[in-house]
Amino acid sequence: MNNRFSDISMRVFPECYPCFVRQANIAMEVGGVNGDSVPRVMKSVFRCLERADYSNKTPAHVTSAMHRRIRRLLKADPFRGVKARYNSIALKMYPELKEKVATSPRPLITAARLAIAGNIIDFGIYDSVDIMGTVDRALDLNSALDVDDSDDFLLEVEEKEQVLYLLDNSGEVVFDRILIEELISRGRNVTAVVKAGPVINDCTMEDATGAGLAGLCKIIDNGSDHVGTILEQCSMGFQERFGRRDQLVISKGQGNFETLMHEGSRIYFLFQAKCLVVARLLGLGQGAMLLARGGKS
Amino acid sequence: MNNRFSDISMRVFPECYPCFVRQANIAMEVGGVNGDSVPRVMKSVFRCLERADYSNKTPAHVTSAMHRRIRRLLKADPFRGVKARYNSIALKMYPELKEKVATSPRPLITAARLAIAGNIIDFGIYDSVDIMGTVDRALDLNSALDVDDSDDFLLEVEEKEQVLYLLDNSGEVVFDRILIEELISRGRNVTAVVKAGPVINDCTMEDATGAGLAGLCKIIDNGSDHVGTILEQCSMGFQERFGRRDQLVISKGQGNFETLMHEGSRIYFLFQAKCLVVARLLGLGQGAMLLARGGKS
Repeated sequence: MNNRFSDISMRVFPECYPCFVRQANIAMEVGGVNGDSVPRVMKSVFRCLERADYSNKTPAHVTSAMHRRIRRLLKADPFRGVKARYNSIALKMYPELKEKVATSPRPLITAARLAIAGNIIDFGIYDSVDIMGTVDRALDLNSALDVDDSDDFLLEVEEKEQVLYLLDNSGEVVFDRILIEELISRGRNVTAVVKAGPVINDCTMEDATGAGLAGLCKIIDNGSDHVGTILEQCSMGFQERFGRRDQLVISKGQGNFETLMHEGSRIYFLFQAKCLVVARLLGLGQGAMLLARGGKS
Repeated sequence: MNNRFSDISMRVFPECYPCFVRQANIAMEVGGVNGDSVPRVMKSVFRCLERADYSNKTPAHVTSAMHRRIRRLLKADPFRGVKARYNSIALKMYPELKEKVATSPRPLITAARLAIAGNIIDFGIYDSVDIMGTVDRALDLNSALDVDDSDDFLLEVEEKEQVLYLLDNSGEVVFDRILIEELISRGRNVTAVVKAGPVINDCTMEDATGAGLAGLCKIIDNGSDHVGTILEQCSMGFQERFGRRDQLVISKGQGNFETLMHEGSRIYFLFQAKCLVVARLLGLGQGAMLLARGGKS
């Protein structure tokens, strides 16, 4: 079980190439790029994708460079507005979500499932009504997660005082806040990790603060504006912090899973396998929900 | 009515960019490209897409150049095998399809609808059972086409002795053969048009011959290996032939529609709006079926 991801290697698969371009399109769309600017930005994206290194690199490496180029071209973060909106929508749901956790038989597990639900929800696609329906399905404790290491997770929360919590997206971070609050109420010392600079709709310090995390726990950045957590691109300070053996690491989202799956059994990955490539690698269906302990590093 | 497409202008929309790359992927997949060859070909595709001219060009212009580059890189036509297979599958269905037309109340309209059904069917996705189900739905004369100029079409077939029939894909060409046979049985003089060289799964002389068109009607090529019918890229001979005013033109498929929609009311477009962009331009749903007379040129 500790080596469940040892045979898996994330790399760029053929299906990733059109998805890269689709992601560039989304960035342009939410950033309000239109008219003649679309082919101008897209040509630059194609140049970036042509020059990318696809040998032994994850898709996160490629999309990090691509999104950086888009931000440079637009002279702005195209996702800034949408991130604030996602946080705002999720914050409106916060009281009801807190109530669901408080009244559930196993609040910590409920909060963990809620955090996975938060990763499922794409606030760009669903409206708030749909979000609540998705949450209800995720919180149905009679339905199994596709990979469920909840028991190990509960034990580790008991044993480890220190928790390093790698955040994923804005909006979703409000769901993470509820799990962080549960951990803190159990006396855990939580450090939340954000990106040092914007990339896609990933949580930065500003977004985490906007979601109410400031004052609740320590927030650090990983020194990087890359998709996922590409350790060699992170600051030395973060690498040192990440490397401590005496902590539980909670890793949210597919990007962090993609880049950290081989980094050891102290990591618990909470995410949905949103893309077909990752789901196939895992031997699961697209949309599978996981609370999965990592393999030995 | 004669100007139904006058307000429509086909160009490269944002959604087209990821679709270009998806098409390149399909070409590699059916052409058996794998391993390290995938990023090698894809990098070249990105270079091609970066250099493409997106101002006032149709998607067909861009994909024509891209597919030409892929063929050059592979030193082969990746679709050659799949085209022969599509023809073979469709030829097995030929006797049953002929019977359906022969026993229908309006054989010419049934054959036209069958030709549209042939455009609907993607032999790469459906197996032969599904194909027959799709055909049955298309031939249900109680269900309306989304655009139906059948009455005009019948009148024009009565009036015009000469028919220029622009073929689309292999496999589909067997369905076209049945409509061509109906036209010939009414004394029409049909000239079928194929591509001069391979592009995607479009019909070449070899494919048309394989589908049984040789000996049935005259077959000419358009002098081009472009997607659709980009007139300025076609041979002078074909341009002269296409320009004759006294003929009915039957144009099969979305690519031909995209490139010929403004070329006059003597053209009847038989196709399915397979892509969202074209469907949206037409104000129809994706998958809409059309037997549509063109606008004045």
